[in-house]
Amino acid sequence: MSDPQRAFFAPFLIKNRSCGGGRITARSLRSSSAVTSQNFWATLTCVGNREESKGNCMTGADLADIYRDYIACLNQQDWSNLGQFVHEDVHYNGKRIGLSGYREMLVEDFRAIPDLYFCIQLLISQPPHIASRLSFDCTPKGILFGLRVNGKRISFAENVFYAFRHGRIEKVWSVIDKAAIEAQL
Amino acid sequence: MSDPQRAFFAPFLIKNRSCGGGRITARSLRSSSAVTSQNFWATLTCVGNREESKGNCMTGADLADIYRDYIACLNQQDWSNLGQFVHEDVHYNGKRIGLSGYREMLVEDFRAIPDLYFCIQLLISQPPHIASRLSFDCTPKGILFGLRVNGKRISFAENVFYAFRHGRIEKVWSVIDKAAIEAQL
Repeated sequence: MSDPQRAFFAPFLIKNRSCGGGRITARSLRSSSAVTSQNFWATLTCVGNREESKGNCMTGADLADIYRDYIACLNQQDWSNLGQFVHEDVHYNGKRIGLSGYREMLVEDFRAIPDLYFCIQLLISQPPHIASRLSFDCTPKGILFGLRVNGKRISFAENVFYAFRHGRIEKVWSVIDKAAIEAQL
Repeated sequence: MSDPQRAFFAPFLIKNRSCGGGRITARSLRSSSAVTSQNFWATLTCVGNREESKGNCMTGADLADIYRDYIACLNQQDWSNLGQFVHEDVHYNGKRIGLSGYREMLVEDFRAIPDLYFCIQLLISQPPHIASRLSFDCTPKGILFGLRVNGKRISFAENVFYAFRHGRIEKVWSVIDKAAIEAQL
């Protein structure tokens, strides 16, 4: 966990744990008519975009649902099903790490942060892309992103973008708010 | 510029400067049928969402166009027109700073980074939200986000989310990749 450029994907299963205290939550977006009506938009997308029609046809609501299932997979540490959501050729911040590297990163993050839990604060879906603001409230054991956290409880955010292909994450561009962590130590 | 939580909005006008070397650019998204067909989706949004119909009806393509004009406004340091894009009551990372505070932040950023230029690498539009990955290639004069840059040329990204109201930015959630800067010093 010494590299602050890394993904922040080591979840810990906490049953019935809730999140979404922000004003705009994934749930509120999901229930809005704005997202529901994306079905119509995406249908048009499928007709008009040749690449999309090659088995990659996806509504904004569909993609948001897949993303929520992906986050649930992380929070359950269900590594055996990670490949349902992440492409074998996945790239992270411009570097190919592949599905196995992605899984290793998650497992290592879990080791470093036993109570890690992914909470979607804001979710923006425009196929084939997702943008998500994730919030974390956790107690890393030792050093995190080069900072001596040593069991202190901290809160911070990650603003992350995903490019999907055929319903799976192919590219990730993530920025973690390291400065917010520094300010809490 | 000592607070890394701050917006990164101090532009410098460089005529004919280009950007968008990434695989997915705002321009490529804009030209895709996916974005164009959002007009239909947004029309449905306007019908189905009462709040949206209160003068806030906006297609994904429309909102993306407004955002690009906002970025052009920054890159031209056109502060007199900033209010066309930013709400008087704007909040930044959970704190109300208002339009005047927003403008002051930009002016100060310009002072600290004379050659600052905003380059949209990835733009995701789902009204009333925009998510944007911005890239910067610049030479800050002194200390930036608490780091002694001192005129060294650096590159880094900002992943930022916006909530619009009536076509203007009302809330901003930004994370700047400070770790990437550290790695270059």
